[in-house]
Amino acid sequence: MTDTVARGRARTAEPGEGIGLDELALATRNHGLPLEALRYDVTPPGLHYVLTHYDIPAVDPASWRLGITGAVQQPLDLDLTALQARPAVTSRVTLECAGNGRARLEPRPVSQPWLLEAVGTAEWTGVPLAPLLEEAGVSAGAVDVVFTGADHGVERGVEQDYARALPLAEAMRPDVLLAWAMNGADLPPQHGAPLRLVVPGWYGMAHVKWLTRIEVLDHEFDGFQNAVAYRLKTEPGDPGTPVDRIRPRALLAPPGFPDFMSRERFLPAGPVQLSGRAWSGRAPITRVEVSTDGGGTWTDAELDPPDPAHPFAWRSWTLDWTAPPGRHELVVRAADSSGAQPLEQEWNRQGMANNLVQQVPVTVS
Amino acid sequence: MTDTVARGRARTAEPGEGIGLDELALATRNHGLPLEALRYDVTPPGLHYVLTHYDIPAVDPASWRLGITGAVQQPLDLDLTALQARPAVTSRVTLECAGNGRARLEPRPVSQPWLLEAVGTAEWTGVPLAPLLEEAGVSAGAVDVVFTGADHGVERGVEQDYARALPLAEAMRPDVLLAWAMNGADLPPQHGAPLRLVVPGWYGMAHVKWLTRIEVLDHEFDGFQNAVAYRLKTEPGDPGTPVDRIRPRALLAPPGFPDFMSRERFLPAGPVQLSGRAWSGRAPITRVEVSTDGGGTWTDAELDPPDPAHPFAWRSWTLDWTAPPGRHELVVRAADSSGAQPLEQEWNRQGMANNLVQQVPVTVS
Repeated sequence: MTDTVARGRARTAEPGEGIGLDELALATRNHGLPLEALRYDVTPPGLHYVLTHYDIPAVDPASWRLGITGAVQQPLDLDLTALQARPAVTSRVTLECAGNGRARLEPRPVSQPWLLEAVGTAEWTGVPLAPLLEEAGVSAGAVDVVFTGADHGVERGVEQDYARALPLAEAMRPDVLLAWAMNGADLPPQHGAPLRLVVPGWYGMAHVKWLTRIEVLDHEFDGFQNAVAYRLKTEPGDPGTPVDRIRPRALLAPPGFPDFMSRERFLPAGPVQLSGRAWSGRAPITRVEVSTDGGGTWTDAELDPPDPAHPFAWRSWTLDWTAPPGRHELVVRAADSSGAQPLEQEWNRQGMANNLVQQVPVTVS
Repeated sequence: MTDTVARGRARTAEPGEGIGLDELALATRNHGLPLEALRYDVTPPGLHYVLTHYDIPAVDPASWRLGITGAVQQPLDLDLTALQARPAVTSRVTLECAGNGRARLEPRPVSQPWLLEAVGTAEWTGVPLAPLLEEAGVSAGAVDVVFTGADHGVERGVEQDYARALPLAEAMRPDVLLAWAMNGADLPPQHGAPLRLVVPGWYGMAHVKWLTRIEVLDHEFDGFQNAVAYRLKTEPGDPGTPVDRIRPRALLAPPGFPDFMSRERFLPAGPVQLSGRAWSGRAPITRVEVSTDGGGTWTDAELDPPDPAHPFAWRSWTLDWTAPPGRHELVVRAADSSGAQPLEQEWNRQGMANNLVQQVPVTVS
């Protein structure tokens, strides 16, 4: 490994540097939501985004066990049958990768090269975590809860099982689930079978897959994925701030039809309904605006009312447009009470939590 | 569109040219089989490779109809209920994209940039096509059968519904299916819902998805996907030869664990079982060989016997290896009665039907 890697620092591409074979190897393994699939309220199997840090592990559900240990009165050791005997709940949750949009940044942080498609919405079925932690009896003075998966690999020189911690208060939220089913079927291998964590509102890195251990700590977790990887850093050596909740974003299902290679869009002149989804993990979406002139002027889209049954799922929006002949740049922008998506990139070294607006050039004839 | 595109020619990357944003946009939409998923006899939902030329169309199965027309005595017009009332069969088939391996070629043909992962095996359920063509009464003198999908787009300047023809004799093979189910469930949208063609043994481009029309021609089909796109061409202007059946290939599930970014593999010294799959659409696989020294010496792997129930599915192979410390290059090579995989690339302008051997560097400690 190179010195850069050994130092635990992310690499930034040189100006004009094309996507490398390493980035491509990640892009062909992992996959995004083809944006026309924004049409589905719940993303069909295989179209939900997937990011796997290492290999998808082979976990035998029959011998699998979950340990709840650390700063607790009574450690627990559970098998799948014991978990599934508890009252289950189902929750519709929109998940987005913290690295979504990374490959559009300039300069480009070198990692999984997402454009805009690292998102999806699923119905997760499982048991709330909080009652299990209560049963184990969290010690006074507990700080973090660490979730460890069965996936094993090396990252910037550090060999590890994937592990991420949540602050105790977040782990105790009533909507945080240990899920064994996705859209009514057993979890597929790539989504964490037999059990994964679901933390509604947080970026994907918190939703630990192939969960094997939950450990309560009386101090802050200093593992790689919390202390090094998922942080907003602007300078080399900057310790940065943690990545947590999903920032507001709207995406448009590109109208018309594409060119195979360039993915440029073509559509006939006349009325067309623009549509897409908007979401935020911070606060309810308050507004979606659309520009058909590259951001010069903006029109409010019609935003579906919030559905009290699905507070953590994306919402639909539509806008009727009469497309005039010519080339146009469509831009969409969501806002929640914390603010609107930025029109200029907000760069950070690892390309995390970027919610720059989407731009869709279309040719109308 | 550029002149190059308008001329209908594929572009080849310049020496050293990185992967472009257009190639990346395809790589993030489409996706391959993470090679550790070679462990599954039947590829789980969402891990099977997907290539969609344009957008995934939204087809309403209730109003969908299939027309069988052209050089037939009695055109047919069928809905899904009528098809599903016929005796169904299920067939396990390994599918591979004709462009698999393209991004490893030098110079690199610019298109969907597959490395090695454009493969998968599924159980397809549907009705054989031949009895339907017999019912329609294929005219004497029929030559080709054209299959048209609901997917619409532009490719090198040509606006089109995706359409591919098979020679009549291939279309009449008893194992060619019109399939509405994959692995026991309705076809997912990205695999062609509500109905797709399955042509066991042929590369993926023949297995037309979102099927809406079947037309029997009394002449050779000259549509884009047969006459221009899926052909082996070496010179500009070369009409080339058609891509048809899958060439032999073996893939190894990379042993050990990966580095996140480089995907380099690490494993401890000592005994390890190497394993993977091998397939060919031309003739049964006769041999799989493994080299642990970059192709210097070769050892025969243990190849599972052919399973008469699944003549079109990949076969497992294994080889016990005692890994010595150091850096090694693993290479695997399959052969059928038509020959073995090449050790040097066989280049063509569109990067089609390439079956150069896989190389997996591993670091043993």
